Amino acid sequence: MMRYLVVNISQLLTMAGPDQPRRGKDMGSVHPILDGAVLVEDGRIAACGFKDLVLNDPRARGSRIIDAGGRVVAPGFVDSHSHPVFAAPRLSDFEARTKGKTYEQLAADGGGILSTVAKTRGATQAALTAGLQARMARFIESGTTTLEAKSGYGLDPDTELKMLRSIATAGSAGPLELVPTLLAAHAVPPEYKDRKDDYLELVCAEIIPKAASEGLARFVDVFCEAGYFTVEDAERVLAAGAKAGLKGKVHADQLTLSGGARLAAKLGAVSADHLERCEDDDIRALAASPTVATFLPGSDYFLAKPYPPARRFIDAGAAVALATDFNPGSCPCWDMRMILSIACTQMGMTPAEAMTAATVNGAHALGLGATHGALQNGKAADLVCWEASDYREIPYYFGGSGLSWVMKAGAMAFSKEGIKL
Amino acid sequence: MMRYLVVNISQLLTMAGPDQPRRGKDMGSVHPILDGAVLVEDGRIAACGFKDLVLNDPRARGSRIIDAGGRVVAPGFVDSHSHPVFAAPRLSDFEARTKGKTYEQLAADGGGILSTVAKTRGATQAALTAGLQARMARFIESGTTTLEAKSGYGLDPDTELKMLRSIATAGSAGPLELVPTLLAAHAVPPEYKDRKDDYLELVCAEIIPKAASEGLARFVDVFCEAGYFTVEDAERVLAAGAKAGLKGKVHADQLTLSGGARLAAKLGAVSADHLERCEDDDIRALAASPTVATFLPGSDYFLAKPYPPARRFIDAGAAVALATDFNPGSCPCWDMRMILSIACTQMGMTPAEAMTAATVNGAHALGLGATHGALQNGKAADLVCWEASDYREIPYYFGGSGLSWVMKAGAMAFSKEGIKL
Repeated sequence: MMRYLVVNISQLLTMAGPDQPRRGKDMGSVHPILDGAVLVEDGRIAACGFKDLVLNDPRARGSRIIDAGGRVVAPGFVDSHSHPVFAAPRLSDFEARTKGKTYEQLAADGGGILSTVAKTRGATQAALTAGLQARMARFIESGTTTLEAKSGYGLDPDTELKMLRSIATAGSAGPLELVPTLLAAHAVPPEYKDRKDDYLELVCAEIIPKAASEGLARFVDVFCEAGYFTVEDAERVLAAGAKAGLKGKVHADQLTLSGGARLAAKLGAVSADHLERCEDDDIRALAASPTVATFLPGSDYFLAKPYPPARRFIDAGAAVALATDFNPGSCPCWDMRMILSIACTQMGMTPAEAMTAATVNGAHALGLGATHGALQNGKAADLVCWEASDYREIPYYFGGSGLSWVMKAGAMAFSKEGIKL
Repeated sequence: MMRYLVVNISQLLTMAGPDQPRRGKDMGSVHPILDGAVLVEDGRIAACGFKDLVLNDPRARGSRIIDAGGRVVAPGFVDSHSHPVFAAPRLSDFEARTKGKTYEQLAADGGGILSTVAKTRGATQAALTAGLQARMARFIESGTTTLEAKSGYGLDPDTELKMLRSIATAGSAGPLELVPTLLAAHAVPPEYKDRKDDYLELVCAEIIPKAASEGLARFVDVFCEAGYFTVEDAERVLAAGAKAGLKGKVHADQLTLSGGARLAAKLGAVSADHLERCEDDDIRALAASPTVATFLPGSDYFLAKPYPPARRFIDAGAAVALATDFNPGSCPCWDMRMILSIACTQMGMTPAEAMTAATVNGAHALGLGATHGALQNGKAADLVCWEASDYREIPYYFGGSGLSWVMKAGAMAFSKEGIKL
């Protein structure tokens, strides 16, 4: 039995509460415990809160002490929306867009999502797994302990399952916990051009049942957007998923008001994601439903598009989550802290609301609210010690590093791998 | 004599060229050398370029090999504008702004720059130095090897000099190289309210000569902005600086078109910084001058304000630099890579232009173009090995981490300090 006692915590954010997503004013209620402690036993929280109470727990005796150095301890981020399985970053698209090319022009030039599909189809499962594992290390280093991971760059049965198998292999190796989602309905593949219904038939009759029966996916997702899949298409995909035992998620109302959010609310999907174009009716529908409203403002930043109207969602009582949308085309960012920065500086969310959206509510957007996203007895011991003495520093500082080593005047000034000269 | 040979470089960006800032199309010309090598001798570049040529250098024999692991090697960033000396971050201002408070309301509530001035006046020089050194480590970890550091939170002779002495102490300890700038004319201090001219007299007759005679500043800077200092005020400050041997820098045209950029061009200041509100006449004046046009888009991001019109500057032939503007009120970001991301995604700069602006042109914005900002024989061996195989990944990925350790299910998943359980 392994027991750890984390002490010397300047602010302990437990995010503890009832096992339901937080809404409205509850999102902004974060009460950091000054000089708290956390007792961990066999991978779970055994006790958590005021230091004196935790230290009085008989199990605290003889536990190995972890000194947090007077820093902030908070739950690990639950990033509930990402596309981390692909063969290569889309650097040429990125460079071309800085020169003024539009998404449509990029696609015509051989870029865009279909270029990622072509390369992902051509990659071996081992190569996809290795790429995913390299990225998983970056998520962990950024404070994310649970990550949803979607397929969706295969758009054929073999490649969609290959992607999901990579997720299963990489996820079982850990330490980042992966939650797999089947997103075969991400786009219509080129070989089904002008035959969208035939592709939907393939998705619903073959890919969804296969992924579900092999236990490779926990959710089914669909890109509900003008030019991709309609509300009717999305309902068909979600119904096939439900039949196979997969709960639904919806890419909704990102570029146009497609009706995806209202569909998600109507069907009680676990989350509706993006929501940039939602209007008051859509917001009210989500607020009245159990569906978590998930914002992905990293992609809005990267594409220089408008952000979702966060305040209207929170004020209406919707349960709001934040996620990275990590993907090679529109959001090469694995850092939830950066997403919180965008939410606070561009969308009017408070630091407390952003932390709630990235932990408790992120867990509920993955159906994991009972076990993840808060430091509470019996829940997973997923916690982060931040280089901060006040939790508001987490969204306040932005940026970070992505380098191996730094030489200054011929001397090694910093080395991630510990190179000494 | 210490010699190092850096090999196994996927792309080597030397940024080598004539010792003058790059302008126009030259800013976008970055020709990475595939499989290059760098020979370092006694803190300087001894040879740099195609591997075969560098390996043929007789000095390469017996050098200690540094394997770059198939990654990108580029010059360290030269961050030519920052305010890294202060007593505490402004977290309450940050939180209040997410709740809709304006800068004016924050100041009325006891926040804003004058709150930083009060705390900095009250801090010991040792405390300021310790805070600066902690931040310097973050700059180094983000790939910055030379940083300009301003005073400007003292606004009285003692505190301005105390800040500059902290910069001198911390800079001499390294490894980050600090370039000190006196910014006594950052704002009018409360005790000189309605007596701006008396404060300017203090700055010009006492603070500038003292800082210069003690060798504590290389540049003098002034905040030329409506409600702060006029063009006439700024000219007076820059003239006093010139008399004392300090070259000029100008905070210009950030919130309003104050005429600061045109003044900088007229006087041949080493840089004009911010430039969000510049119009075509101002841009032409800067382009026709030796003054480096320095953008600080991190503060525009943090305050959700418009970005400077970068393309018009570059197309007009101005020499453009990028810097963080790191400071506790409007830009808590030490990461130049984040600034490059903003420049590429929000301002239409290409990855190559952004790298040029952050290295060669940053060095020229500090009068260091002959010795810094490029990997070229005789220049400082300031180089960074990036976790990337293509240099465009540097601005492509955004965000990073700022944590001490991560526990997943009770196991240590990542620890910056090497904690093992």
